[in-house]
Amino acid sequence: MPASTDPSLAHHIAQVPLVDQHVHGCWSTAGDRNRFENALNEANTQPLANFDSGFDSQLGFSVRNHCAPIIGLPRHAAPQLYWERRTRFSEAELARLFLPAAGVTDWLVDTGMPAEVAGLAELADLSGARAAEVVRLEQVAEQAAQAPGDYASAFEEILHRRMATAVGTKSILAYRGGFDGDLTEPSAQQVAEAAKRWRGEGGSRLHDRVLLRFGLHQALRLDRPLQFHVGFGDRDCDLHKTNPLYLLDFLRQSGDTPIVLLHCYPYEREAGYLSQAFNNVYLDGGLSVNYLGARAPAFIARILELAPFRKILYSSDGFGPAELHYLGATLWRNGIHRVLQGFVDSGDWSPPDAMRVVDLIAHDNATRIYRLGNQ
Amino acid sequence: MPASTDPSLAHHIAQVPLVDQHVHGCWSTAGDRNRFENALNEANTQPLANFDSGFDSQLGFSVRNHCAPIIGLPRHAAPQLYWERRTRFSEAELARLFLPAAGVTDWLVDTGMPAEVAGLAELADLSGARAAEVVRLEQVAEQAAQAPGDYASAFEEILHRRMATAVGTKSILAYRGGFDGDLTEPSAQQVAEAAKRWRGEGGSRLHDRVLLRFGLHQALRLDRPLQFHVGFGDRDCDLHKTNPLYLLDFLRQSGDTPIVLLHCYPYEREAGYLSQAFNNVYLDGGLSVNYLGARAPAFIARILELAPFRKILYSSDGFGPAELHYLGATLWRNGIHRVLQGFVDSGDWSPPDAMRVVDLIAHDNATRIYRLGNQ
Amino acid sequence: MPASTDPSLAHHIAQVPLVDQHVHGCWSTAGDRNRFENALNEANTQPLANFDSGFDSQLGFSVRNHCAPIIGLPRHAAPQLYWERRTRFSEAELARLFLPAAGVTDWLVDTGMPAEVAGLAELADLSGARAAEVVRLEQVAEQAAQAPGDYASAFEEILHRRMATAVGTKSILAYRGGFDGDLTEPSAQQVAEAAKRWRGEGGSRLHDRVLLRFGLHQALRLDRPLQFHVGFGDRDCDLHKTNPLYLLDFLRQSGDTPIVLLHCYPYEREAGYLSQAFNNVYLDGGLSVNYLGARAPAFIARILELAPFRKILYSSDGFGPAELHYLGATLWRNGIHRVLQGFVDSGDWSPPDAMRVVDLIAHDNATRIYRLGNQ
Repeated sequence: MPASTDPSLAHHIAQVPLVDQHVHGCWSTAGDRNRFENALNEANTQPLANFDSGFDSQLGFSVRNHCAPIIGLPRHAAPQLYWERRTRFSEAELARLFLPAAGVTDWLVDTGMPAEVAGLAELADLSGARAAEVVRLEQVAEQAAQAPGDYASAFEEILHRRMATAVGTKSILAYRGGFDGDLTEPSAQQVAEAAKRWRGEGGSRLHDRVLLRFGLHQALRLDRPLQFHVGFGDRDCDLHKTNPLYLLDFLRQSGDTPIVLLHCYPYEREAGYLSQAFNNVYLDGGLSVNYLGARAPAFIARILELAPFRKILYSSDGFGPAELHYLGATLWRNGIHRVLQGFVDSGDWSPPDAMRVVDLIAHDNATRIYRLGNQ
Repeated sequence: MPASTDPSLAHHIAQVPLVDQHVHGCWSTAGDRNRFENALNEANTQPLANFDSGFDSQLGFSVRNHCAPIIGLPRHAAPQLYWERRTRFSEAELARLFLPAAGVTDWLVDTGMPAEVAGLAELADLSGARAAEVVRLEQVAEQAAQAPGDYASAFEEILHRRMATAVGTKSILAYRGGFDGDLTEPSAQQVAEAAKRWRGEGGSRLHDRVLLRFGLHQALRLDRPLQFHVGFGDRDCDLHKTNPLYLLDFLRQSGDTPIVLLHCYPYEREAGYLSQAFNNVYLDGGLSVNYLGARAPAFIARILELAPFRKILYSSDGFGPAELHYLGATLWRNGIHRVLQGFVDSGDWSPPDAMRVVDLIAHDNATRIYRLGNQ
Repeated sequence: MPASTDPSLAHHIAQVPLVDQHVHGCWSTAGDRNRFENALNEANTQPLANFDSGFDSQLGFSVRNHCAPIIGLPRHAAPQLYWERRTRFSEAELARLFLPAAGVTDWLVDTGMPAEVAGLAELADLSGARAAEVVRLEQVAEQAAQAPGDYASAFEEILHRRMATAVGTKSILAYRGGFDGDLTEPSAQQVAEAAKRWRGEGGSRLHDRVLLRFGLHQALRLDRPLQFHVGFGDRDCDLHKTNPLYLLDFLRQSGDTPIVLLHCYPYEREAGYLSQAFNNVYLDGGLSVNYLGARAPAFIARILELAPFRKILYSSDGFGPAELHYLGATLWRNGIHRVLQGFVDSGDWSPPDAMRVVDLIAHDNATRIYRLGNQ
């Protein structure tokens, strides 16, 4: 079919600017090969076994395929060769190679991960792009637990102060018990009692459902997008408790505040359904795209099922190796090209429609809900 | 491979007559653009947000692609153009264009939706095809609640009277609490007590599990197919409670009465499994095919996994715009052609086998279980 | 793309030796057509209905396509013709045709199915390959229930005796209540009480959770792979209770003992996730590949998502007709070729990487965890 040789869609996708609406910092300190290989496995919280290698996975193959040329190697370079070449660069030098190559204009950065990674200013400098913060609600809670005085007031004060420059909030409720169960707003008295109890225990990692629910409802009041980690992540979460359908009652009460479902694998169909069912629900496929590698096109196609096209967003969820910030963009560009070119070749979609949907996902939808045009 | 250019399978699928075994009426009254765009979103029970458009979805793109030529427009006509052209016709005129074009010989019509849509006689007249009724059990219950005397007797009397001309029953248990929980037959005393309570409350929308269970077991006694809404629908149902695997215990007690699982997305694999596990279980992919548009072929392929080929049915679940009655047929024909041609091209299936499976799904299986040959 | 005509990957896959790491015996006694057709339906525990045929399914079509040439018929031979030709051979003669054609060097045989099938020695003789035992834990329990003296001691004694020559264990917990609920190790007193109760009831089919849990933890101590039936099987199991994510807490306590998730459909994505999340978790797609037939390539592709390539295994789960032992291998070879050739043609993988992953799945991973090199 002649359409498949029409280069306009391919060209459009190759150069479309991206808003990476959920990302973390890249490494800012040197590390060994174990650190690197373990960073290619998301789900395992233990070091990889001796018989295994982080390179022997879809993500590992994708790094060797797509990242090798950025550091001067042929595609599919062997793991040993890739690692040796990588060690010739500092992490900052790698970031200056990989980050600009992603074609991202705005990084929306979840700063809640405790690790030695680049902050907002550093990320902006290394990439030559804008960076804005997404505030992790559980981190605000932990800050409020350490603050003097009333917990609820401290939470509100910290949240509003941080939101003066931030563009959205993020919840990792998925890692703190999951989505099933009551997610209504607790009373002031319940919050005060729970905070007292938690502070009494030292205010460490937040697992108290009352305080988690309190944070979510504070975020809903901000009228700024609220992101949820959904599905695929590390084994600290019970994956089956992160099915976003357990959020149904919460979404029914969530008003107009945009709710963004992140990652979503293997619940991307359920997430797409929710984005059709609620005017304020959005989804992306960040993290999953990187880990699926050669299988990312099939995943991207599933995102394009029930989800209205004005409700789909792009992100990489890059964290650690700067490769991941680049690879997320590259695999998304390759994948959406393959999927949409297929729709065009079969006669289902027209090329202009395909290009318009690319723009919606790449930047238009994110610009609208995060009000990036107002910056 | 030469087989892919063999036109016989394509021709066979293009002209095969269909039994649309689950459908509703098309609109019989005029409406504005909001009504039309909202009819392109199934899951949302609220009006679409201002920033959104029903056209920006797989279904919207499919309407512009496949329906535009039926009203004299080029494929992929712009939304504004499509809407303007559509307003030149009355709903009846649109039905006279779209319904015959679907190639349907029999419409099996769920008449339980409270809306201004064409009835059986009107649908038959507009399409030039036969129409037969599928009786919604929850509607029978609501009629029995308003009837004088004993509830159970009234239910049975109304059901048997309606079934004198109807070909099957339908349950929307999915919308009335979902499938998990006890689905055994309640005792006569339990039914009488529940009916008294419900009538005391005015007998409005049925949510009482005892009476819902009573209705299901009355339907099982009829030896006529019993349809279940499964999966994808509007957000009034808790999607995760419509996983058909929750029906396992009910199916284990259901005897020989055909049970038909409708729509099924995203539980089509589970539904296919059940249709292999029970001699009396069937499935279709109606509604889902329309909403998946360019992704419908992938869905149709999943229906063709564990389900025995004598257990798969066709339906559109069209409701409202006459486009949907036509589009269901067109997307199914396109989709099953793409899937089966793929099986033939790879050498997995022979062309005669592919054509025979088309016939089974298009009409043979439905004709057998609804005894349409006996009409 | 020229790569797709490069025969090296196709050739490599066609001749790669397989370790069939989960299989049962083939029939050793003659049977009628009903037995054969019912053996083409896994999920149904009742005889197939009169209107149905085991041939009208993906598995039935695959038998006619791939097995017909082995018994001297053209591909896609009609069911009646296939059955008539099949009756010219004894089951042993069929096994001598189909088993060697599978290209298997090692059969790891679950001997726990009560049926008239070939044992280890017979399977080795019929195929010209090695055969080793996988011990079914629930069978050990039933043997211990019949043994004199303390149940726990009897269980341990029988298990260790059988494991002197066996290479792994297998649990059908999926069929005995499923995976949800407590799977921690019970105390010695709990075991003694449960055993007393069960023996008092005659020690028939094991459903007691305490004794099932006891068996699992005994198996963990062996440091030999422990297989779990996961997902697709017959309707005696509640499919939704076999989601392997319910094993999360058990896996968190399982140490270094390899845990192998078998079959997995429709939970192969969840199983792949678990194999990334735990150094000791593996998966295969046996049984599912046979039943998916022309749809097996799509399934094999899903296995190649989150699962690290050193954690994927091959099996057929063949049981009964010798066709199934051969078909599992043939459909797997065809399917993985189609999937990996696609990765190569799109530029995502290099041909040498594809060949290496084939070797890992075909035999290397199984040889490592079952220590087959030590035989």
